[in-house]
Amino acid sequence: MTQTINKDIPIPLYYQLKEILKDRIKSGDLRTGELIPSERELVEQYEISRPTVRQAVNELVSEGLLRKEHGKGTYVAKPKISQWFLENLTSFSDEMVEKGLEYSTKVLKKTIVSADSTLVEIFGDRYKSYYRLDRLRFVKNEPYVLVTTYLPVGTAEDLLDEDFENASLYKTLEAKYGLNIGYADRVIEAVNVTEEDAKHLGVDPMHAVQLITTKGFLEDDQLFEYSIARYRGDTSNFTIRVSYKSR
Amino acid sequence: MTQTINKDIPIPLYYQLKEILKDRIKSGDLRTGELIPSERELVEQYEISRPTVRQAVNELVSEGLLRKEHGKGTYVAKPKISQWFLENLTSFSDEMVEKGLEYSTKVLKKTIVSADSTLVEIFGDRYKSYYRLDRLRFVKNEPYVLVTTYLPVGTAEDLLDEDFENASLYKTLEAKYGLNIGYADRVIEAVNVTEEDAKHLGVDPMHAVQLITTKGFLEDDQLFEYSIARYRGDTSNFTIRVSYKSR
Repeated sequence: MTQTINKDIPIPLYYQLKEILKDRIKSGDLRTGELIPSERELVEQYEISRPTVRQAVNELVSEGLLRKEHGKGTYVAKPKISQWFLENLTSFSDEMVEKGLEYSTKVLKKTIVSADSTLVEIFGDRYKSYYRLDRLRFVKNEPYVLVTTYLPVGTAEDLLDEDFENASLYKTLEAKYGLNIGYADRVIEAVNVTEEDAKHLGVDPMHAVQLITTKGFLEDDQLFEYSIARYRGDTSNFTIRVSYKSR
Repeated sequence: MTQTINKDIPIPLYYQLKEILKDRIKSGDLRTGELIPSERELVEQYEISRPTVRQAVNELVSEGLLRKEHGKGTYVAKPKISQWFLENLTSFSDEMVEKGLEYSTKVLKKTIVSADSTLVEIFGDRYKSYYRLDRLRFVKNEPYVLVTTYLPVGTAEDLLDEDFENASLYKTLEAKYGLNIGYADRVIEAVNVTEEDAKHLGVDPMHAVQLITTKGFLEDDQLFEYSIARYRGDTSNFTIRVSYKSR
């Protein structure tokens, strides 16, 4: 049975439409990843005004149930992959295994670069050159995160010979190079994707990405890693528990 | 002295341009919040190709030194306001006072709403109605974050009579209503701004925003608050320290 909008009850029309669309998503009538009817179609189907449709759709977008793609239309959003890695410095692979999600890694670049002003600002001027590792990580065969990692060349000899399509960087550094990894400082930002990243991540220009930069420290407080991760905004979220500090 | 690109040294041209632009930003020749020269102007000024200019500018955008605005140009980015609130559940006002930043709050909406399916999903079906509080918070007179907060009406009588342009919600709940706030679960996502939020936050359509939803719990584990905060991506970031859990 198709639900209809009832104009004789004191419930706002946009709100009724929201509830109808939610039901259609829950029942599978509108399916994950598929386009929903256009504004015009919803206006005709439910005999309501365009601003009413727009309000309902916008609220569902901001609640994360729908997702707009510029110039294409509005889709039923996929459930995001939820990561706890802001709390635990676990490896990507461990977290995916724990969740039972199929994942893979493609190494885009493995190279040695000279110190530039950004790296000098971060590491100081101790090191002349750095390993640079660019990895694109997939979950369920879809691009999920693009990570660029810098490590001073002195940190681990022949590190670039490792097979980072199959091995975890942190585990390799610990098991093979004897590093005692201690903690990391992360900075979390929402940015619009760059042109180049958009191609790798398979998203539209202007797509929102979660930028997470990490400084990794050894137990003796030595900085050993600097990395820049770009997560697709439409498929990732991060959860964290914080306790209240009354002052 | 204006720096120039040297085509006779083995340093990539895009990289030389990056360093020159960084210097021009540091020296104040290119100022925070101002437009940088257009691609065409940089091509002419430094006698290099357009792809070279584009690579330099894109890397500076992804490093956060420059910021592109759709259809307007590229600006020198303002330093972001860095918040630690992912680690400490402090109030917005406390954090701003600590940083010495001038802030203010505008209450956009103070109302009582009926339970809808989203609220039932979050709080269960115990409560028939909720306070809804929409606050737009400014830092240095610029919109910074838009927060929608829901609290079950039973939580605190006459809560909407409080002056939330000047009082902190958490402090009021503790001091006046005797709530013992315990902890919060936060979910962190990067999304493109909605049309309505864009107006309040004063940003372009498609601007990236940091969406942080919070479930606040009392010390006895009772859920008392659900809120959705939308931070401007261009002016906010969040820092967190995590320790390594070797497995």
